[in-house]
This record gives sequence, C-alpha cells and structure tokens, in this order.
Amino acid sequence: MKKAEMLLTHACILTMDKTFTQFEDGSVVIIGNSITAIDETEKILKSFQSNNIIDCKGSILMPGLVNAHTHIPMTLLRGLADDLRLDVWLMGYMMPVEREFVSPDFVRLGSLLACAEMIRSGVTSFADMYYFEEDIARAVADAGMRAVCSQTVLKFPTPDAQFFEDSLAAAREFIKNWKKHELIVPSVAPHAPYTCTPEILKACANLAVEFDVPLHTHLSETALEVENMRNEHGMPVIPYVKKQGLFEAKVLAAHCVHIDEGEMHTLLHAKAGVAHNPSSNMKLASGAAPVKKMLEIGLNVGIGTDGPASNNDLDMFEEIRLASFLAKGFSGDPTALPAEQALLMGTRMGADALHIGHLTGSLEVGKRADLILIDRNPLHRMPHFKRTPDSIYAELVYSAKSTDVSDVMVNGKWLMQDRKLLTIDEMDILQASQDFAKKIDIFLIKREQSVLSKLIAIGGATEEESYEVQAKVAIQNIDSVLKAIHNPKIKIIRTRHYREYDTYFSFRDAEQGYIRYREDHFIDEKGETTNVRNRLTHLGTSVEHRFPQEVLLSRSRFLAPATQSLRFYREYFKPNQEVEINKDRLRFLVSFKKTEFFINVDTVTTPDKGHFLEIKSRTWSLRDAEKKSKLAIELIHALGENPSTNFPKDYFELVKS
Amino acid sequence: MKKAEMLLTHACILTMDKTFTQFEDGSVVIIGNSITAIDETEKILKSFQSNNIIDCKGSILMPGLVNAHTHIPMTLLRGLADDLRLDVWLMGYMMPVEREFVSPDFVRLGSLLACAEMIRSGVTSFADMYYFEEDIARAVADAGMRAVCSQTVLKFPTPDAQFFEDSLAAAREFIKNWKKHELIVPSVAPHAPYTCTPEILKACANLAVEFDVPLHTHLSETALEVENMRNEHGMPVIPYVKKQGLFEAKVLAAHCVHIDEGEMHTLLHAKAGVAHNPSSNMKLASGAAPVKKMLEIGLNVGIGTDGPASNNDLDMFEEIRLASFLAKGFSGDPTALPAEQALLMGTRMGADALHIGHLTGSLEVGKRADLILIDRNPLHRMPHFKRTPDSIYAELVYSAKSTDVSDVMVNGKWLMQDRKLLTIDEMDILQASQDFAKKIDIFLIKREQSVLSKLIAIGGATEEESYEVQAKVAIQNIDSVLKAIHNPKIKIIRTRHYREYDTYFSFRDAEQGYIRYREDHFIDEKGETTNVRNRLTHLGTSVEHRFPQEVLLSRSRFLAPATQSLRFYREYFKPNQEVEINKDRLRFLVSFKKTEFFINVDTVTTPDKGHFLEIKSRTWSLRDAEKKSKLAIELIHALGENPSTNFPKDYFELVKS
Repeated sequence: MKKAEMLLTHACILTMDKTFTQFEDGSVVIIGNSITAIDETEKILKSFQSNNIIDCKGSILMPGLVNAHTHIPMTLLRGLADDLRLDVWLMGYMMPVEREFVSPDFVRLGSLLACAEMIRSGVTSFADMYYFEEDIARAVADAGMRAVCSQTVLKFPTPDAQFFEDSLAAAREFIKNWKKHELIVPSVAPHAPYTCTPEILKACANLAVEFDVPLHTHLSETALEVENMRNEHGMPVIPYVKKQGLFEAKVLAAHCVHIDEGEMHTLLHAKAGVAHNPSSNMKLASGAAPVKKMLEIGLNVGIGTDGPASNNDLDMFEEIRLASFLAKGFSGDPTALPAEQALLMGTRMGADALHIGHLTGSLEVGKRADLILIDRNPLHRMPHFKRTPDSIYAELVYSAKSTDVSDVMVNGKWLMQDRKLLTIDEMDILQASQDFAKKIDIFLIKREQSVLSKLIAIGGATEEESYEVQAKVAIQNIDSVLKAIHNPKIKIIRTRHYREYDTYFSFRDAEQGYIRYREDHFIDEKGETTNVRNRLTHLGTSVEHRFPQEVLLSRSRFLAPATQSLRFYREYFKPNQEVEINKDRLRFLVSFKKTEFFINVDTVTTPDKGHFLEIKSRTWSLRDAEKKSKLAIELIHALGENPSTNFPKDYFELVKS
Repeated sequence: MKKAEMLLTHACILTMDKTFTQFEDGSVVIIGNSITAIDETEKILKSFQSNNIIDCKGSILMPGLVNAHTHIPMTLLRGLADDLRLDVWLMGYMMPVEREFVSPDFVRLGSLLACAEMIRSGVTSFADMYYFEEDIARAVADAGMRAVCSQTVLKFPTPDAQFFEDSLAAAREFIKNWKKHELIVPSVAPHAPYTCTPEILKACANLAVEFDVPLHTHLSETALEVENMRNEHGMPVIPYVKKQGLFEAKVLAAHCVHIDEGEMHTLLHAKAGVAHNPSSNMKLASGAAPVKKMLEIGLNVGIGTDGPASNNDLDMFEEIRLASFLAKGFSGDPTALPAEQALLMGTRMGADALHIGHLTGSLEVGKRADLILIDRNPLHRMPHFKRTPDSIYAELVYSAKSTDVSDVMVNGKWLMQDRKLLTIDEMDILQASQDFAKKIDIFLIKREQSVLSKLIAIGGATEEESYEVQAKVAIQNIDSVLKAIHNPKIKIIRTRHYREYDTYFSFRDAEQGYIRYREDHFIDEKGETTNVRNRLTHLGTSVEHRFPQEVLLSRSRFLAPATQSLRFYREYFKPNQEVEINKDRLRFLVSFKKTEFFINVDTVTTPDKGHFLEIKSRTWSLRDAEKKSKLAIELIHALGENPSTNFPKDYFELVKS
C-alpha cells in the first residue's frame, strides 16, 4: 500500500484527457500539489492509503475551468455603463474612470472580488491582462488561484505608466521576479496592434522570448480594426503582427473575431492560442468568432469571459454554453461545437491555449491537482440519461449553473469546500468594493451634470479663452458686398474658401450651452476640397456684453480637434436636440483702419437661409472690444450693408425650434 | 389605518409599470390575491397595518418572470439527445420516445419537475403547449403557478389522440372545465401550420374565439418551414395562417424567427403576441428572430425557454440575457435591446404577449400579487452603481443568476420562501424522474443496438420477406449481351431504364447488415429523367443458400420509401462507413422457359467498374429456388456470358474497403 496525502473517492470523474476517460465511481490520489493516480475507486483503495480520505458521494469531479481571457480588476467597473457602443463605452466611460481610479489598491480589491467569483463558479486558472499587474499577481497568489498575469503595454499614458517604456520596464521586472512562482505565470501584454507602435510589439515579443513566457494580446476584435489595418498597412491584422515579429513569442490572442482561414493557419503555425469571448463579443456587437473553422484547422481555442465590465460577470458555465450556442446559431448547423468539445475548450484546450497545458486543464497523472466538485442532482439538471458517454457533457454544458460547483482545489489546496471560500474574506471585499463604486458614482454624476465636464473627461479639449467681437447681418446683395470688399480702405491679407458642415447639440438644460461639431472642407481655386478638419466647440449661452447695434462680445470657451465620429459624440453627450447647418464661407482676413478683422461672407445652404455677412475680431479687454465694435459697424457700412438688422449670435439660433 | 393581509416592507422595488417606477425603500400591500398599494415604506406604514409584515431587508422585489413559451413535461426528456439536427432530434428521438412514454403520469411528473425549476428561478407565469394538457394544468395548479395551458392539436397521431378530432374535443372539454380557474388560462394549440391541416387551424381558431381564450402555436421557426410554405402555397407563413382565420383568435405565436416587416404588421394588427426563444433557436440553429424590428413596430414580444429538451433548462435569467446579447450580436448594434427593455420582455410585455397582461407582469395596484425577491448583494453582482436608474436593470440582466432568487409568490401565496419550495416535494419528483429516465435509457439502448430497430423506430419501414435468387457476372461484351437478349428463347415482357444512385451505410458490427439509400431516376427514350423514387432498404448479411456457380438465395428484409433526406439517415444511423455507387441500369422483365426473370444490364459508373449482368427472380421455396438457379445459369449462357465468375452478392462488396 502506497501512502497518499489525499484521496478523493467515489466521484463521477470526467478526466477530459485525450480519450475523454470517465469513471462512474472513481478516485483521485493527490501527493503534494499533483495528481499521482486516477482510477476506479475499488482499484485505488487497493493500492493507496491516506489519513485524508474525502468521500465525494457521487459528485462530478472534473478539471477546474480555464478562463482564457479577462481583466479581473474590472469587476469594480461592472455595470458602470452598458448598452453603449464600444468607443463610447471605452473612451467615454472606462478610460476616464480608469485614469481617475485605477491604483494598486483598486486592482488588488478588484482582483480579490474576481477571484472569489471565479472560485465560486469553478474556475481554477485564467489569463489576465491589466495595469499594475504585479499587484494583481500578488492578490491572485493570495487567493490561491493559477493564472497567466500579463502586464499591459500601450502607446498612450495608462494608469500605471506615463510612457510605454515605463510599463515595459515594469513588465520585465515583474517577469523576472515571478518567473518561478508555482501559481503565477508572468507575461507581457502589448494591448492591441492599434494601441501599440511596431516598436512596442517588437519589444514585447523580444521580452517574452527572452524569458520564455507567454505574450497576451487582443487581435482582430472588431471589423473596424481590420478595415483600418487594411487601409493603413494593406493587410489584415494577423500578417501585420507577424511582420512585427509577434509570433516569435508564445502568443495568446484574444478575440480573433474577424480572421480568415489563411490567418488561422498563420496562428496554427505559430502555435498561438486563441481566446474566444462569446458574451463580450455579443454584448459589444463585435460579431461571432469563426470557432468551428478554427477547431477544424486544429487551433487551440480557449473560452474567456473578457473583463467583467463588458460581460458583466465571470461565469464560465455561461460562456461555454454560449460558445456552443453561437457556433450553432451563426453557422446554421446544430451539430456544430457539440457539448464535449465545448467543455474541452473550457478545460484542457483552454490550458493549451494559455501555454500552461503541461500543468493543468485535465485530470492526468503528473498534472497539478486543479479540480472541482459539482453537485450531481440539482433539479435543473434532472433526470440523467446514460445511454451515451456524451450525455454528461451535454448535461454540464446545456443545463449546469455555476452555482452547482461545491468544492474547488488548485495546486492540491482547497480554495472552496462545501461552498465556503477558504482564502478570501467575502464580506470585507464586498463592502470595500461598494465603497469604490460610490466614489466612482459621485465622480461620474458630477461629470454628467455638465456638458463641459463631459467634454473635458474624454480628453483633448483645451480651454481657449477666446473673447470675440461679433456683428452679423443678412446680406441684401452678395455681389455688391464681394465687390465692395475690394474697397481701397480695406486691405485683404488672406482669403479662404470653406464649406462648413455644422451639427449643433443642444440640451434640456439650456444653461449647459451647445456643442458644435464642425467639418471644415477647404476649397481651392478649382472648387475642389483640399483638406478637411473636424472640430468640436463648446459654446456658452451667455453673451458677455452687447454693444450698440447688436455687436456682441462673447467667448468660445472650449475648442478641440474632433478625433471621434459625430456618432460617438451624439451617443456620448446624448443631446436633447440636434440641428444641422451647412454653409459656404468666403473668409477674408483684412486690415481696416489698422485693425484686423475677419469678414465672413456666408451662404447658408442647409437650411436654405440665404446670405450673411459676419464681422469678427479677437479681443482682450472691454475697452478694446468697444473700439472694435464701432469699427465693425463702420466696416459693414463700407461693404454697402445695413448694420441695424437685429440678428442672433449664432446660426444655430436661426433654425432651432 | 387600513388593515392588510400582508405587507412586504423595505424592499428595493422595480415595478416594471409603464413609467418604470422604482422605490429604493418600498413596500407592497397585499389583500387577497392582489396588490392593493405600492409606495415608499414610510408612506405605506403610515396608512396600513397588518399582522403579517415581512421585512425584505433591502432585497430586490419585482414582478415574477413570464416564460412565454415552453413544453414543461419535456423536463423528463432533458439531455436525452443533443447536438443533432432538428429532424434527427425530433423524428429520430423525441417522437419515438414520446410515442412510447408520454402518459398522464409522465406529464404530471414532468410538469412538477418543471414547476419546481421555474419557481426556483423566479418564474411565476408561463405558456405551455403539450399533450394531456388537462393533467398538466392540474399539476401546475397544485404547484400554485399561473399558466396559459394549451392542448396540442395536430394532424398526426399523438400520445393522447389517434385522430385530431379527439384532441380538439379534449381541448374543448378542457377549456370549458377550466375557463374560470384563478391560476390556469386554458387554451388550444394547433401545433404549427406544417403539422396542421387548414381545417384544424380553422377549428382551433373558432374554439378559441368561442371561449375567448388564447390560441398558442409555432410560426416560422425555421427558414425551411417558410421555404416550403412559399413553394406549396405561394406565400410566407403569417399570410397563410391569416387566410385560415387564425388571427380571429388571440394568438400567441412562438418563434417567428423568419418573418418580414409586412408579417410583423399583420401580427400587430391582429394583436398577436410573439414568444422569442433565444436558446432554443440558437441550439437548434434556427436563427435569431428580428426582435429589434418587432419591438420598433410595437409588437408585444415575450421571452421563452421553449421545451427543456431543446434548451436544456428553464432558466429565464439566461434567456433574457441571451435575448439582449443576440439582438446586439446579430444586428451589429450594441445599443440594441438594452437591459431595461429586455427585462420588460421577461415581465410585463411577456404577460401582454400571453394575453394575461391585465392579471400579471408588473407590480401595479389591482394586479395579482405575482412577485419575487432577489438577493441584493451576491458577489457576482457587486458592486452596484446608482448613477442612472438603468443600472439596476443592467445588473439583473447582465450579471444576475437565477439562483439569486430567494422568494416567490403567485396570486398572493408563497411558493418559495428563503429558497425552500412550499408546494412541491423535490426529493419525490427527483427520484421519480430518474426512474423514468432509466426506462427511456433502456428503451433507447435496446433500439440503438440494432440498425433494424432504429429503422423501425422512425416508422414507415415495412417488413418484406422478399426471397430472391440472384446470379451476377462481369460482362465481357455489353453489345453482344444486348443483342443476345433478343434471342427468340427470351420473351421480353417489359423494359425499363434507370439511373440508380446508391449510398450504402455499413456498421462497426458487421452483423447489423447494411442500410442502402437509393435514388432511382427513371429515364425515358429521350434519355430524360421522368420520375425519381427514393427507397431505403435494410440488407441482411446472411446468404440463405448458395447454389452451384454462385447463384445465391438471399432476402431483403425491410424496405421503405425514404421520406427523409440522405443527410437525415446519415446522422440518425451514424454509419461506420459510407460508400456511394452509381450505375446505369437497363432492366428487362423476361420470360425464359416459362419462368419470369429480371435481367439487369448494369454499367457501374461510380466507381468506374464496367458492366455487369444480373439475373434475379423472386422465389418462395428452396425447391423453386433450386430450379430457378439452374435456369439462371442457362440464361447467362444464352446471353453469351460465362456464369463461372465468382462474384459477391452485392455491388457494395465490390468497393468496400
């Protein structure tokens, strides 16, 4: 009789090994952190004895689930913003909040909350990617879970680094320190091709190769990403990153929603793993990855939850089921991705995709004891059919709930027994996480109260105290104005021709002012567009001063290049009303009585409102403004028009309801 | 102070009423089976007193979920057969097992198991459709749930009726008896347009109108159904059933996966409800219903689980989440079907779709007290954001699990408190359901052991004890054979020309014999196909007798018209090997020495094997066979060929590996 540290007896065992061996009444022998034997209970009890025999009483015993891609600290951002487009969600909410709140404390708390949730739902290993990854690794190791922890590197400032060199150095330090840890596999994560320079991609690949650790990244998540890549580099995403040497490393590629068969072969040849994220891809409407084809080709495809801010949970039972449903639903073939294969993706194949298949993913002699017990007879899975060995996989994939998991062991150590967490104090983290949520709520509520703060929150907007004297009149005769401008008293310094496409957002609370999204098309002498510029302006409602004859002093406080689409701003600012105004503008910079003015001769085409003359001049004091207001009236007279027409400050007021 | 039978106090209330009223600390007053008041706790406690005050301690209190379409007794068939095509699943497994097992006892047990599962997961109302519906209604009423119970009617024999007139009469009786029940709304269910005659559809509609009860049916579930309808009737499904007068009744239409905008308007005009079944439609690869468009048009769309044999559970939290995910994923728009609207479909709008919106679906004064309590702080939903009132819907739709439900009330009566079922004995039904599963397993294992029983199980195969004398030789010279057939000793009675496309299925266990799927194309003088016949034959392996010179006596035991596709039979029989043989056959019925023979002059084209001569004759005794075997040899000689060639019994043996 051999002596074992622990015997788990009388379990219905699914090994998920190469031949899908099952034992109706099986036992597992554990010595140290590993599985020493696995067989029918009767046989095991003849060969092994132990002081620690645990009778599993017919529960299902199987390898713990492998969550192939996530961002665990984002539990703290779960449900913060939903039902939004990817860019609005990411740039309008996630990134501003991350900039404000993500810290070592934040990631530790979020990681512990995530580990608690994952242990409860039968996950034993996962691949994470976030900021302050060494702090995350420490929390995960404290919770006792196995993980590939990947330090994010990208070209923008992040919560943990002002420049990418800093995060790259942090990644190196982290990998060096944790390389031999028994639970944590440290790794580097160039965030995505569109958020990294070729230099970053190369440096990350080199780092991963140097230490022989996995490289974790996002590839081909959305159709837009692929389209942009094709436009900019003339090739899709996989060949592009191959060109940067990414596949020198052991890659774990998250998403791969939009890749073709050739790209799949490239991934296969590079021995890269793929992380399929069905809930996240559906919820963000990115599409459904061609999983059936990937599996046919022989790729290792794991299943991931993605971050809990875009899912919004870490439930791998839900993901595995959804992977099978989507493969069937999108291919039109109900035999696609059968239960056994879906569960394989959630266990052994997932571990292979993470490049930790030699350690975990199946119950086999020599592998670490990473395993879970699942209740045998909850009513939502009753009754059981035993006609084929497939039935039990169908039962787990199509009917099981994560709450059916009763016990979880990682590396030979219990993390949960009889639904009690043994390494994490739940009450503590629940309270602390709610405290964080309250702070974030306050931050966002304050921000959302003002259109201006929302504008500042997405970055790029610069305060520009642009005081301006402005006079505007409807033109009676445009030809005579254009002739009169060549008056010897008016010296033309510069002439420009634009077509301007303006969209005005207004808000229920008129005090908020307006947001103007402007597309400026520069027109050359041949009438062709030579350049386009998009600008976003926040227009206050208040007029600083009214001079005689409706000359106004006002300020345009915030001005920013519009780097996002009109659609983004629409969904982000949620205006109450939207008005479109298009006009043709001849813009003259002139000197009139030694003072510079802009003369705009505008033709408002949408809506059809006729011609207008606008006289503008920057100013810095009320006294200067007063002087310029008088000159502006003179200038209007000099152009043959009548300045007495009462006219609103902005074209927007011409048409708003 | 008014006196109330029950006060539920200090709950976070989501009323799901027209304005989505929420109370952070709210109370509900229940008198009899209905809600009498609902407001902030402080206000309620000032106006009402009760001996039965239940402090909800901050739990979420909301209307119970409405499962808009299911077949509850099919819990007993959950996981019986998965990852199969609809026809194989339905005709190969569900229908044969239903024919054998479905009885009043079966439906009662399955219904109780389903009610237990639904109560546990927060469902208070549902729409069922099955056989022996009055027995189901009795079980549901005993469990205390609210349901639209629909007696199925279809043109084929069912477990509860040999002829549709019987089930129609049963439906009438059922509706009459239960019309005034406080929990059950009886209803009639013409199964689907393709399983009902126009007469059945009309009769069901008339019955529903006569008693003013809902009519429940399946419409446009698969693209094939719509295609067939267009081919047969020149219109899609909705106009077809409208023509049959179906929309005279209050219709609840399950699925509607493949309907266009015009059809949606027809449904709207008819005030029909739609039941969307996301899991089932994905799992059976039927597609995703155009829910976003349906909602825009103003249809009442509920969400259903469909039967647990095609899902494989009754978890409405999963369905509601999936409804939102699919709407986003299939439309490419992540703002589609936001959480609030998805939860509305699972509650008030679902009740409206079932035509019981006046009774249930929201917490409003006057409606029945059908409500659930949900834990406030499980870790997989933490933390909570309160920035917008939408957050709590997102939390429930995207992160909640059905196991978060702690208490369930229907019609003012508790069915579950603190996760204890109060109306159903779980242990009892679990044991009994497992006993049923065991019987079904034995039935199917026995059937699956024999290819012949599998053939009989799907119906249509007839035993045909067709003994046959058969001699076969490879032809040296086909022209001379075709000339020789005009020998005066041979009287040609009839000539036919076919092209035969045969697919042979063979099995690991050779004793099982073969299944041959044959497509016979009849060729006219011009060489054109005039008719096609598909036949299925089970071929035994045994040769009854061998006469000299390899003349064989054999029998072809089972012969059936092949009503299903080759693909169906392939997936149903799961052959070990499959061989295709195509040939051109000239078939002569001749009289030779006063005995009738078939002479087949065959050219095997796939694989290219040359020409063969087959002499066949039916027989009924060994003596007759012996006589005919000698004549067959003579006939071969008369045709100028050599009968000594040793040749296998069937072409299949020519090519099998």
